[in-house]
Amino acid sequence: MTPEGALAPGSTIGVLGGGQLGRMIALAAARLGLKVHIYAHQADEPACQVAAAATVADWTDEAALARFADAVDVVTYEFENVPAATAAFLAARKPVRPGPLALEKTQDRLVEKDFLRGLGIDTAPYAAVDDAGALARHIGQIGRPAILKTRRFGYDGKGQFALRDGSDVGAAFRALGGAPCILEGFVDFEREVSVVAARAPDGSFAAYDVCENEHENHILATTRAPAHMAPETAAEAMDITHRILDALDYVGVIAVEMFLVAHEIEGRRREKIVVNEIAPRVHNSGHWTIDGAETSQFEQHVRAICGWPLGSPKRRGRVEMRNLIGDDAHRWPQLAAEAGAYVHLYGKAEARAGRKMGHVTRVTRD
Amino acid sequence: MTPEGALAPGSTIGVLGGGQLGRMIALAAARLGLKVHIYAHQADEPACQVAAAATVADWTDEAALARFADAVDVVTYEFENVPAATAAFLAARKPVRPGPLALEKTQDRLVEKDFLRGLGIDTAPYAAVDDAGALARHIGQIGRPAILKTRRFGYDGKGQFALRDGSDVGAAFRALGGAPCILEGFVDFEREVSVVAARAPDGSFAAYDVCENEHENHILATTRAPAHMAPETAAEAMDITHRILDALDYVGVIAVEMFLVAHEIEGRRREKIVVNEIAPRVHNSGHWTIDGAETSQFEQHVRAICGWPLGSPKRRGRVEMRNLIGDDAHRWPQLAAEAGAYVHLYGKAEARAGRKMGHVTRVTRD
Repeated sequence: MTPEGALAPGSTIGVLGGGQLGRMIALAAARLGLKVHIYAHQADEPACQVAAAATVADWTDEAALARFADAVDVVTYEFENVPAATAAFLAARKPVRPGPLALEKTQDRLVEKDFLRGLGIDTAPYAAVDDAGALARHIGQIGRPAILKTRRFGYDGKGQFALRDGSDVGAAFRALGGAPCILEGFVDFEREVSVVAARAPDGSFAAYDVCENEHENHILATTRAPAHMAPETAAEAMDITHRILDALDYVGVIAVEMFLVAHEIEGRRREKIVVNEIAPRVHNSGHWTIDGAETSQFEQHVRAICGWPLGSPKRRGRVEMRNLIGDDAHRWPQLAAEAGAYVHLYGKAEARAGRKMGHVTRVTRD
Repeated sequence: MTPEGALAPGSTIGVLGGGQLGRMIALAAARLGLKVHIYAHQADEPACQVAAAATVADWTDEAALARFADAVDVVTYEFENVPAATAAFLAARKPVRPGPLALEKTQDRLVEKDFLRGLGIDTAPYAAVDDAGALARHIGQIGRPAILKTRRFGYDGKGQFALRDGSDVGAAFRALGGAPCILEGFVDFEREVSVVAARAPDGSFAAYDVCENEHENHILATTRAPAHMAPETAAEAMDITHRILDALDYVGVIAVEMFLVAHEIEGRRREKIVVNEIAPRVHNSGHWTIDGAETSQFEQHVRAICGWPLGSPKRRGRVEMRNLIGDDAHRWPQLAAEAGAYVHLYGKAEARAGRKMGHVTRVTRD
């Protein structure tokens, strides 16, 4: 009766990365009787505190990677910038889920946009920018405001430069270190939303309700579920996500960040979805599912990569998740005293500015 | 704004015992950014797989106990048979919560019954039995059926002998090894219920709704919340629990196991509560709170022993928890495929008969 190829309780999941996402994956795995082995750069990272084992080494340490692969039954990751060579080295030894194709299509913003357009999915207008001359050429077509982004290694607003009227394009390119870039046109969106969803090795699919996200200083501040949007637009967001997962032959949880664009046509409101970016992993905008859904995104990810049946993504009410950034974490006594507030702290010693220290979730009746 | 004497996130909780209760305490502590250090007899026990640190040593190893005390900020335990000398050794170095008084009053069934009677709380009729002669004497007063139990170290029906009509009392006493015993009269109960509750260092109190328990082969099989009983009887059960906690100046989660006795007086149904026993710890009959209440008993225990405000014990619906005993654990694929079933497995390698391997919780609308 065991699903074919499923990892039984007692198996070990290898997780690349030791941050809070790895930590919450480890906590979810433990509920299901699965062990976790973290591959981290430092021994005191958040995930190492709750894992059965940890390897502390660099991405390029092949001896350490080989021992890690020997010790685990499946490999996953908590962030998308795992070097392709590391993923390939491990994939030759143990299943890596999501697979290398997902990393390839999402590590480079230009490749990602081309992939989305190839599926007929709307994105912001964009152009490759390899030098200052190309930037000067394309800014004319795409117009201002626009955003110049490095193609690789950007997160939380890092590696970005906004080009407004009068901005010096040469300075923009230099500010990003002359790295290969993508120029993205501005999307006049009403709100930012995301779909967190999972796909299992047998192709089955389960998505949480679309949620809406507010950012402050380019860092996610608040997620609310469900998002304010027309049911048919929500269905379109789901369909887009499903197509992306199928095209990647994806296994695990993904987050697709989208813009909800609204305009009036002949006096009627029309909504459409423009995809912003894909995170091939569990995602901050899915943290509300720990307390606000029947299966958390972390358990769902574990189920998917272990070949278990996907769990129910049903919401338990209206849900709001707020990140605790930097000094916000010092508010834990008040938050702990608030009836019905679910407090999560990530075990980070130092509350540096801009650092994600924890989150708090509130669930109210629908 | 930090509650006085509260342990801040990043503090370390020392847990005596490495079983599934310690494991679930560790998982709850991690959510709140607290570290856990397990004191276990073997390195592969369930709690060690999810803890930041583990000490593997005997209860009598004072060097190991001293190192453990140095490494933690508060000490708790997952079972009530921690030797008194161990608790005293640790209590001289770090706060032990619940305190040694709770252990003293609950490790010995005779002391426990005397304590309850001293509070004016109903128990089964009982008598101390130190030799076969005393047993022969008391069986006459208490009547049959009755149960002879060792005063110490009994659990899950171990250390018990039922005396029915015709049972040989000498054989009963010898079967229990001649240890000091207690003879308990039979209580003709309608159902077994329990109250899981918590008390904080400031005396604040929070209780989960009374739940009802079904045992099979002396092992808890099923818990349902809320219990079928009159509201005034439930209030009485709460009041009894509150009095016990106050009398013990208790800090942490406790479970009070009770019999619900019902009879007709002049055509009207009357219910009363008879206390069976006290477990000074998180308890199997509180596992339903993980998925079925706003704060799990494990988080509540962590909050109490760390001096945090107690969380909301509100139920999320009607809840049923079933233990997975021995081979039941092999049903994980079917359970994992059941929508809305919350599966928990404890990371035990071998599914021996009678061994608690996990549990499954189902929550339905009230």
